[in-house]
Amino acid sequence: MASAHDQEFAAGAPRVIVAGATGFAGALAAHLLWRHPGFQLSAVSGRADVGRRLQELYPRYRVPLAIEQLEIERLGAQAAAGEGPDAAIVAYPHAAAAPTVAALRELGVRVVDLSADFRLRSLPTYERWYGEHPRPALLAEAVYGLGELHRERIAGADIVANPGCYPTASLLGLAPLARADLIADVVIDAKQGISGAGRTFDETTHLSMAGENILPYKVAAHRHTPEIEEQLDELDPAHPGLRVQFQAHLVPLDQGELASCYVTPTRAVSAQELRELYHDAYAREPFVEVVAQPPGTRDVQETNYCRVLAAADAHTGKVVVLAAIDNLWKGTSSQAVQNLNLMFGLPETAGLL
Amino acid sequence: MASAHDQEFAAGAPRVIVAGATGFAGALAAHLLWRHPGFQLSAVSGRADVGRRLQELYPRYRVPLAIEQLEIERLGAQAAAGEGPDAAIVAYPHAAAAPTVAALRELGVRVVDLSADFRLRSLPTYERWYGEHPRPALLAEAVYGLGELHRERIAGADIVANPGCYPTASLLGLAPLARADLIADVVIDAKQGISGAGRTFDETTHLSMAGENILPYKVAAHRHTPEIEEQLDELDPAHPGLRVQFQAHLVPLDQGELASCYVTPTRAVSAQELRELYHDAYAREPFVEVVAQPPGTRDVQETNYCRVLAAADAHTGKVVVLAAIDNLWKGTSSQAVQNLNLMFGLPETAGLL
Amino acid sequence: MASAHDQEFAAGAPRVIVAGATGFAGALAAHLLWRHPGFQLSAVSGRADVGRRLQELYPRYRVPLAIEQLEIERLGAQAAAGEGPDAAIVAYPHAAAAPTVAALRELGVRVVDLSADFRLRSLPTYERWYGEHPRPALLAEAVYGLGELHRERIAGADIVANPGCYPTASLLGLAPLARADLIADVVIDAKQGISGAGRTFDETTHLSMAGENILPYKVAAHRHTPEIEEQLDELDPAHPGLRVQFQAHLVPLDQGELASCYVTPTRAVSAQELRELYHDAYAREPFVEVVAQPPGTRDVQETNYCRVLAAADAHTGKVVVLAAIDNLWKGTSSQAVQNLNLMFGLPETAGLL
Amino acid sequence: MASAHDQEFAAGAPRVIVAGATGFAGALAAHLLWRHPGFQLSAVSGRADVGRRLQELYPRYRVPLAIEQLEIERLGAQAAAGEGPDAAIVAYPHAAAAPTVAALRELGVRVVDLSADFRLRSLPTYERWYGEHPRPALLAEAVYGLGELHRERIAGADIVANPGCYPTASLLGLAPLARADLIADVVIDAKQGISGAGRTFDETTHLSMAGENILPYKVAAHRHTPEIEEQLDELDPAHPGLRVQFQAHLVPLDQGELASCYVTPTRAVSAQELRELYHDAYAREPFVEVVAQPPGTRDVQETNYCRVLAAADAHTGKVVVLAAIDNLWKGTSSQAVQNLNLMFGLPETAGLL
Repeated sequence: MASAHDQEFAAGAPRVIVAGATGFAGALAAHLLWRHPGFQLSAVSGRADVGRRLQELYPRYRVPLAIEQLEIERLGAQAAAGEGPDAAIVAYPHAAAAPTVAALRELGVRVVDLSADFRLRSLPTYERWYGEHPRPALLAEAVYGLGELHRERIAGADIVANPGCYPTASLLGLAPLARADLIADVVIDAKQGISGAGRTFDETTHLSMAGENILPYKVAAHRHTPEIEEQLDELDPAHPGLRVQFQAHLVPLDQGELASCYVTPTRAVSAQELRELYHDAYAREPFVEVVAQPPGTRDVQETNYCRVLAAADAHTGKVVVLAAIDNLWKGTSSQAVQNLNLMFGLPETAGLL
Repeated sequence: MASAHDQEFAAGAPRVIVAGATGFAGALAAHLLWRHPGFQLSAVSGRADVGRRLQELYPRYRVPLAIEQLEIERLGAQAAAGEGPDAAIVAYPHAAAAPTVAALRELGVRVVDLSADFRLRSLPTYERWYGEHPRPALLAEAVYGLGELHRERIAGADIVANPGCYPTASLLGLAPLARADLIADVVIDAKQGISGAGRTFDETTHLSMAGENILPYKVAAHRHTPEIEEQLDELDPAHPGLRVQFQAHLVPLDQGELASCYVTPTRAVSAQELRELYHDAYAREPFVEVVAQPPGTRDVQETNYCRVLAAADAHTGKVVVLAAIDNLWKGTSSQAVQNLNLMFGLPETAGLL
Repeated sequence: MASAHDQEFAAGAPRVIVAGATGFAGALAAHLLWRHPGFQLSAVSGRADVGRRLQELYPRYRVPLAIEQLEIERLGAQAAAGEGPDAAIVAYPHAAAAPTVAALRELGVRVVDLSADFRLRSLPTYERWYGEHPRPALLAEAVYGLGELHRERIAGADIVANPGCYPTASLLGLAPLARADLIADVVIDAKQGISGAGRTFDETTHLSMAGENILPYKVAAHRHTPEIEEQLDELDPAHPGLRVQFQAHLVPLDQGELASCYVTPTRAVSAQELRELYHDAYAREPFVEVVAQPPGTRDVQETNYCRVLAAADAHTGKVVVLAAIDNLWKGTSSQAVQNLNLMFGLPETAGLL
Repeated sequence: MASAHDQEFAAGAPRVIVAGATGFAGALAAHLLWRHPGFQLSAVSGRADVGRRLQELYPRYRVPLAIEQLEIERLGAQAAAGEGPDAAIVAYPHAAAAPTVAALRELGVRVVDLSADFRLRSLPTYERWYGEHPRPALLAEAVYGLGELHRERIAGADIVANPGCYPTASLLGLAPLARADLIADVVIDAKQGISGAGRTFDETTHLSMAGENILPYKVAAHRHTPEIEEQLDELDPAHPGLRVQFQAHLVPLDQGELASCYVTPTRAVSAQELRELYHDAYAREPFVEVVAQPPGTRDVQETNYCRVLAAADAHTGKVVVLAAIDNLWKGTSSQAVQNLNLMFGLPETAGLL
């Protein structure tokens, strides 16, 4: 396996930095870029642990770079000298991300942002769920980073809003039905491993509390709902305003996520029609696998794949769609790399197989 | 803690046998009866491991009785001598259970049956899901063993059909809504630990395959559906024929089950109305806890409790009900003991707190 | 199962408080006392979460008492009125415990202390490992609370130092060899579940870091070593000064601990001699099980039992002793209750079977 | 990441088959070869599941080849036509492997054998632990496949005996001490995840039995002992005949192994001397990391690395060595690929970073 750190890079290999590399998502992104044959990981930054090498925090990822403090001025000087980064993955919490994204944009750096700050197109919707937006003017510029839905726009974008992990699985599961105007009503029951809670140290992540537990959370009020709804509206503009019932659960594993979607269709749908719909949608997608057996999250563990099963339930008339991903990979960090591949004209699968 | 095996029993303490004690459910039932202050565990039987002591297979349960082969003739002789068992818990697979239940009934033994053989009142429904019924004549005699719904009938019954674990959580979650005629449509997404697969040795239970996995199974075709539908029909006779969308998932823990129920109500329901509905239904139930925080399965681990949260989702108008149990306890074996308590006039909580 | 909270207590049932009930050990002790037939749990205190009910923090334990701030003056007033507690379990960190124990003693309260403060008889040894001792004068008064070794002294003691979980398993495994003067050299390799790290929220307890990990810690420097050495010296006074090689590891489960002990014997030991030695030592012990099959921690999960296997290795001449306990039960909280049983003249197994 | 299946291969890329690809070890070897830039995976065989694609059994590995029955005659015909495999990884059980290895050798195929059949140089030792050897004549030809010890001999070998996972971690941990003639006595306490039990379906692998358990096995009688002893003898020929105390344990994770080694040194060893010894031994090894912090198995999960910590215990005078590997990777399958790299003159790290 060719590895970035074993190679001399051609002069033109884009330089990428990861801001917020000490969290789970940023650290994995740094790992993937470090061994990526088409990018140079030029710096990793964090708000804590400055000076330590990233691999002290995440030994398994083996990224020997020292953690820096992100200093926009210094980046500006580098840029002026023609040595600045070409791109950045920003792995900051919601609201903290937008100002940094704005500053990076002013330096001409192209950004994949992992926060929710640029995922929603509607400012009022953002404000209803997250409060005031720090940089509303940039919203129009951002592209929703689900390659399977917006490949061309991502290629030309300077700000790509990486989707949430729940919307990733949910939308890949539901897109073929939405495009065909088949969703009259939908319930999404999502389950996720503990890494979804991030590097947070509390009752939800302690093994003696999270282990041997199945824990629903944010009952009837999950922030990922509007993101899913906006994208479904875009896929099915004829019937806007669908309200999605979304519920999240933590289950005792590390990485893995399953979105179980229960669709009341707008009309009867046969198994044969479903099969064709999903085949047509995904036959040429490198990272979506339509399967006939129940998709387990283990099937996609530590990969950028999404596995989807769609089934018609003759007893109820509903359509059941099950979509499995690794929440940290396709749900977050490897999807960010997929977006970078698209943005820089590399093969979409580079560094991800 | 008073323990059966430390005590001299009064002459009248009912004798109970467990048939099929080598499986997870039977072994736990034997454990609970062994330390029960109001019953005598007089024998345990199994189709394998005859002659070994049950605690060799399940050390933690510490039941020192030797596993016997169940011989109805021998039981008959004991009965004739006035030394036969008063009751039996039968933990056999579906279809294998009914003939044994019938034979025990002929000896006058009262039975709690853990299989599906006597859970459905409709013979055609049984046959559609399970094939021919071995003893259809006994169906009318059996009572559905969910104490919270059928307490009086259980007390007088000679055959009690212990509910499936999924129906237990689902029905305790949905009963208040069903009785109030509030369910227009319902999706049940259930998650369960690996013990739900029983003492089966295959890909679904191997730690290196079941661990770090979330696995849906029996997509759009689960046998527990008709059991839930029949009971809901009985609770809401005004609107029979509700079709329940049910989907089961295995998650990597041992014991624990959560039923997440998504109800489209027949009319708008307020949070206040929901609160009152669930309070009125369960305030005096010893084993149902209505809570305001999301119920985790750890909260009820190794107990006979069911924890329920009902929430109105203002965004969608739906009602979300989350019901957590321990699938092996309230979902199976401790519920069987609760049924025995009711059948023999003991305090309902005896041996279960 | 008789349960304390279902009963009217006879006037004389001893009142027990748990100080530090919000940690894992204190909470379990409170749970065990709450359902104990021979004690009254009269109060639970904590330094955080005052005012909340203990069962909000530990739903499964279902102790409805409100968490109080421990106020010695108030206890003094209660004592003066003849309503003070008869005993206390103190679950404080090392060094914080001793002053509280001293204050409780002045009120005449008998104490089981879960910290290390009173486990060592040698003050210099304590100071070498823990620093200055807050109440050295009380050391002489304390009895080491391993019932299997010091039953009579515990019965008469007013301060019982509950052993560490590692010493509990190690000493129960090694005592028969030590008494027979058979230990020339010993290596103890101990493994423990994550609950051993307590309600600590950090890298060692986060499921995404502790899961799928085997982690040695405190290499070549574990504080439990002197405790084991002191007790072994007492068991084998002819050969004092044995140095124990002790190493601890965290493994990804909740509760469970195995001490694997590798003994170079002072002379050749046959399998037959080993069998007799362990049989003679433990045949009448209610909580020690000598077994012929490898003891798994699951065999003793959530019990006060210790399972021991001793084997002579013909290839090396060494003796291998494997001792399994539940670190939170026999390793901590249920052992504290066993000590209370001894101190108050109750059956040693009361509330623990 | 360059991937074998995306590339046109130069005519000379060696063809490799995996015999026994349906077990955990064989399947992972096939996965690693499938994406290896320097080998062609030309066939996978198994004794079960013939005709199914390997990725149906192991979806995550995504090897689309159909499982074949291994037919030596057919391979012979291919070889005659110049289209036979150049190498094979044989993943068969002990005793079943040797005849297949012999047949492959007759066709000129170079073999890495994962079984124990060729690991021991002494036939009497083999026979004492395993019974009659099927092909004793080949023993002399085989090289022990631990690259860090026998790099040159492996390069020239036609039969490489891949080490057991326990010996791999143990020997990498102990080699520097053995070479320096420093081991007077040694205890090895090894812990391993459930994948170490292989695709076996029984009580040791069922999540509801293996989960929440720490289980010692093969007490005082493990077959890996002679393999470790033979290699240590070779490293320290001045003092042959060292008897190793070895004990294995299963802990509830999937992949990961830690060997904790407790050495009584032949003379006093300082921390400084230890540091230099291990640095000198491993500074240029691509896959051995000498660390100062306790090595967790998570640090090496799904890698070919071994992490080693050596510490001098001033209290006891012993040396503690902790060596962590992934039992399926460095312990088995990736080590087999490392051996193939050496045998075919590829960079030792090819396909493994």
